Amino acid sequence: MEKTKIILDCDPGHDDAVAITLAANSDKIELLGITVVAGNQTLEKTQINARNVCQWLGVDVPVYAGCGQPMVREKMIAGDIHGETGLDGPVFPPLTKELEKEHAVDFIVKTLMESDGDITMVTTGPMTNLATAMRMEPAIIPKIKQIVLMGGAYTNGNVTPAAEFNIIADADAAYVCFTSGRPITMMGLDVTRKVLCYPEIVDRMEKIGNKASKLFADLMRFFCKTQKEVFGWEGGPLHDPVTIAWLIDPSVVTLKPMHVDIDIRSVQSYGRTNCDFFGYGGQEPTANVAIDIDAAKFWDIVEAGLRRYSEA
Amino acid sequence: MEKTKIILDCDPGHDDAVAITLAANSDKIELLGITVVAGNQTLEKTQINARNVCQWLGVDVPVYAGCGQPMVREKMIAGDIHGETGLDGPVFPPLTKELEKEHAVDFIVKTLMESDGDITMVTTGPMTNLATAMRMEPAIIPKIKQIVLMGGAYTNGNVTPAAEFNIIADADAAYVCFTSGRPITMMGLDVTRKVLCYPEIVDRMEKIGNKASKLFADLMRFFCKTQKEVFGWEGGPLHDPVTIAWLIDPSVVTLKPMHVDIDIRSVQSYGRTNCDFFGYGGQEPTANVAIDIDAAKFWDIVEAGLRRYSEA
Amino acid sequence: MEKTKIILDCDPGHDDAVAITLAANSDKIELLGITVVAGNQTLEKTQINARNVCQWLGVDVPVYAGCGQPMVREKMIAGDIHGETGLDGPVFPPLTKELEKEHAVDFIVKTLMESDGDITMVTTGPMTNLATAMRMEPAIIPKIKQIVLMGGAYTNGNVTPAAEFNIIADADAAYVCFTSGRPITMMGLDVTRKVLCYPEIVDRMEKIGNKASKLFADLMRFFCKTQKEVFGWEGGPLHDPVTIAWLIDPSVVTLKPMHVDIDIRSVQSYGRTNCDFFGYGGQEPTANVAIDIDAAKFWDIVEAGLRRYSEA
Amino acid sequence: MEKTKIILDCDPGHDDAVAITLAANSDKIELLGITVVAGNQTLEKTQINARNVCQWLGVDVPVYAGCGQPMVREKMIAGDIHGETGLDGPVFPPLTKELEKEHAVDFIVKTLMESDGDITMVTTGPMTNLATAMRMEPAIIPKIKQIVLMGGAYTNGNVTPAAEFNIIADADAAYVCFTSGRPITMMGLDVTRKVLCYPEIVDRMEKIGNKASKLFADLMRFFCKTQKEVFGWEGGPLHDPVTIAWLIDPSVVTLKPMHVDIDIRSVQSYGRTNCDFFGYGGQEPTANVAIDIDAAKFWDIVEAGLRRYSEA
Repeated sequence: MEKTKIILDCDPGHDDAVAITLAANSDKIELLGITVVAGNQTLEKTQINARNVCQWLGVDVPVYAGCGQPMVREKMIAGDIHGETGLDGPVFPPLTKELEKEHAVDFIVKTLMESDGDITMVTTGPMTNLATAMRMEPAIIPKIKQIVLMGGAYTNGNVTPAAEFNIIADADAAYVCFTSGRPITMMGLDVTRKVLCYPEIVDRMEKIGNKASKLFADLMRFFCKTQKEVFGWEGGPLHDPVTIAWLIDPSVVTLKPMHVDIDIRSVQSYGRTNCDFFGYGGQEPTANVAIDIDAAKFWDIVEAGLRRYSEA
Repeated sequence: MEKTKIILDCDPGHDDAVAITLAANSDKIELLGITVVAGNQTLEKTQINARNVCQWLGVDVPVYAGCGQPMVREKMIAGDIHGETGLDGPVFPPLTKELEKEHAVDFIVKTLMESDGDITMVTTGPMTNLATAMRMEPAIIPKIKQIVLMGGAYTNGNVTPAAEFNIIADADAAYVCFTSGRPITMMGLDVTRKVLCYPEIVDRMEKIGNKASKLFADLMRFFCKTQKEVFGWEGGPLHDPVTIAWLIDPSVVTLKPMHVDIDIRSVQSYGRTNCDFFGYGGQEPTANVAIDIDAAKFWDIVEAGLRRYSEA
Repeated sequence: MEKTKIILDCDPGHDDAVAITLAANSDKIELLGITVVAGNQTLEKTQINARNVCQWLGVDVPVYAGCGQPMVREKMIAGDIHGETGLDGPVFPPLTKELEKEHAVDFIVKTLMESDGDITMVTTGPMTNLATAMRMEPAIIPKIKQIVLMGGAYTNGNVTPAAEFNIIADADAAYVCFTSGRPITMMGLDVTRKVLCYPEIVDRMEKIGNKASKLFADLMRFFCKTQKEVFGWEGGPLHDPVTIAWLIDPSVVTLKPMHVDIDIRSVQSYGRTNCDFFGYGGQEPTANVAIDIDAAKFWDIVEAGLRRYSEA
Repeated sequence: MEKTKIILDCDPGHDDAVAITLAANSDKIELLGITVVAGNQTLEKTQINARNVCQWLGVDVPVYAGCGQPMVREKMIAGDIHGETGLDGPVFPPLTKELEKEHAVDFIVKTLMESDGDITMVTTGPMTNLATAMRMEPAIIPKIKQIVLMGGAYTNGNVTPAAEFNIIADADAAYVCFTSGRPITMMGLDVTRKVLCYPEIVDRMEKIGNKASKLFADLMRFFCKTQKEVFGWEGGPLHDPVTIAWLIDPSVVTLKPMHVDIDIRSVQSYGRTNCDFFGYGGQEPTANVAIDIDAAKFWDIVEAGLRRYSEA
């Protein structure tokens, strides 16, 4: 079977780091490049984090820096959740892996234009890079096979009552992507909150005993602490890896087609992903929205993904 | 123990009718008056429905007609759910119970001003009457003991993905009430969707065999049918009676204090009750929001309430 | 010729006081009552001001207090322009003229319902009372002959760049009135800024030498001072009396029919009267908007109005 | 004296064509490049128009195509004003001047980054290219000497009552530029409507008798016709050239520093440039806004500019 070609656009971030780990070493996925955006921390920090993760894991994938702020709005970061570096917890050796010279947006445009329309765009941060690429070169749009994102919620948000972080951090970019007409699969808080990484999960993964499992444990011990402080949970939700887990095994998530509108005009509800769950609006569905996840299967996928690093 | 004095402001409506049934004949509640508003149907129809219910049950409570349209917005009704009359299903005998001459807003103002501050305002429709009363005579505000409403949602809405019917039908009125500074208890879709009136519940209530139980069964058979058509559920959610059930037995509902903002400026998210579930906004709670309901206990309260009509 | 019957709804306010002066003693106008609203100052102060003006002029017209705050929004006053009392400048004798017991909204509803549809509603403050009356009793709407208001602007505002005071102070009320379907004549800043009351005008009026001219001069000397401080003008614009001057002599103002939308959803442009001057929107005109004023004729009308108090 | 180095970002468009004519052959201005954006017509057409104008005039300046749609919103063009081609009227010979291969945004980024901070950005269309460049590479922002734009209005708009075309066509881009912190000079409708190109002006320019004057006359005869149809004016306003005229002779326009906010959240007032003319908001000015223009001097500048083509 052919591997799914993806570009992973991310803002590491603890859960992004796990997404990279799963995507970079899978028999189902071919990771063409990692493009980085500001989000969980500033661009200067998130691109360093992406390179540190790749170097630690021995992953040979090019890393590109993209947009350092949202398309229109002011910058917003999530320092309370991801710490000062954006990836607090692990201690990395001196960084030698280099950042590509090309701008992430240019890489996305060039790669898509040269493709046969078989590339999946996975975004686990604000969608600024992808949206800017779509506006710089609209001809890439029909070249995108599908967009798989972590972001949004049809229940309540995690930054405001209305909105989730990846969307509110650049709702305008999300609006551009959601109105692009390409197939979209949205992994929102509605399911990612169901994969809380409790201490026993951390222990289970740590026991694998390779570099990937050590990274996972170091990341999650920090992440769980801040999640508890901010949300009161005993385990941190492993948001971003749900996208990769679904690409590896689509049966892990239950999807429902819905019409999704991004609220970019409200002050109070800015960044809400208004998902027409019941279809009362009568508009054509624009995204497959995750409504349930098989948590046991998800953790199995994560464990298998980490174990592959032993075999490597 | 003293009874809780209430004014019930409603827009019957099937579930409003059950709320009237429970409120008008309880050893815990003294129903001072029923004030009617446009909502589930036009005012002309909802006030007739309120009187029909009272007459059928032999309830001697004055019924006042109030505002026939929202404070600012255009009128919105819910004909698809409640039918042509707003109370399709039961067949009532000729209506002899008269409508009071006084405007509902004037009744609310007068009653509150003459009170000792011991009156609970219960609203199970758009909050137009109460908000207009607050603006006509701000001196009533400190006289209101508390506001208990059915309305809103911190998950997804039932008219738009963002908003619930009673709020979107007059979000400006809800804004006025939620910013009044009085204690508010909000029964939103988040819990009222957990008391779906399945056919076996209808059968159970019908077996009671009095006029109240017959009314309940006739109402619910129609209501369940439209709910299934619109939302795909096998049972209709008994939204409005949750307010009365909680006044009868507060243990039926689990509450959490939250800061609640009503979005009155967005086009797309107009009428959303943005409830700060996790408290990340850091603002003082402004309402006790229902987050769970003991469904078995709820149905016991409903059954007991219907049975009281046998005893009467 | 028959006199035009009007109810003057105002928030005195210096220019409101001149509007009262002109309206209360004219052979063209029959002033049925003065209804007062919060605006230039709090309701407590504006109703006192209205009574003081009537008492000083010997005008026997009932004064009713109405709404003390906007329909939905928070209260906003204009203390920087109208001073601590809302009518700083003149010194009035002890107040003996009583406030009517009836609420202004009830007076408006009752008077319109008993009328033959021949009453003009003149508003020179926020439109809260009229809008609330329309919502309390929609049957008054077809009874209103026309609405003549001071408010709005199609050029720039005077509270924000987008909005004029009377509209922004209760844009929701303005929205209700502008969507009522009744004939509307709007005297906005676009023309009222063209009747600046320069010192030589004050001198000219003062020379008339009666109680009305003395009141005018005392008012304008204070008003011109604050206008200069806030806007840098040598004379204060006599906004509100333009409504009455037009009822006395319609040739004083040039009108153009336009579709007018009130922006009640924007944060930044809240309260803008979006007037389709060029008609590019293609919607039916909803108001006659003043686009020019004959300033010389206006001052003649004011002078003639003040002189009538000598004759009285 | 040193020439002012500019990049002219435009969407030709009749008045853009005159702006190019004036900018490309002046002893005060060094035109580094022409970057084109969608606006008056689609990008496909506006870039052809820019090249046709350059070829006709014998102007050797590179032309770059940029963004074909707004940053976030849907595309909006002005076909009713500028005709099917966006430059209806003149008949051009076969086009041989080539379009540069580089994207306009990349050209702007590269040119600014290599500069000494002495380049003025002139925009006479939607500000999409400049805003996108700022977001792709924020390091260009301190390199921009100043931004001079045609756009906006503090009085009424020309697309909606609230908004002017260049701003409403991409208000988000305007927001990015106006919040960049760079010096901005805004030539809005408030002054550009004062330079209506009446038939006698067209005759005067045509008499110059060179290729530039012929182009001017062919353009203006068409432009005046559509302006009359849409706005009822006898002459078309020469909006865009006001920017270049001011760079040639700053005394032609009177400026006033104001705080300017772009409304990007309202539906009804989207794209309004809320200019705090009176300074009541108390915020620091963010732009020099044109409040008057010396029309006679403006036409002299235009005439002198056209005449330079005789001398060439």
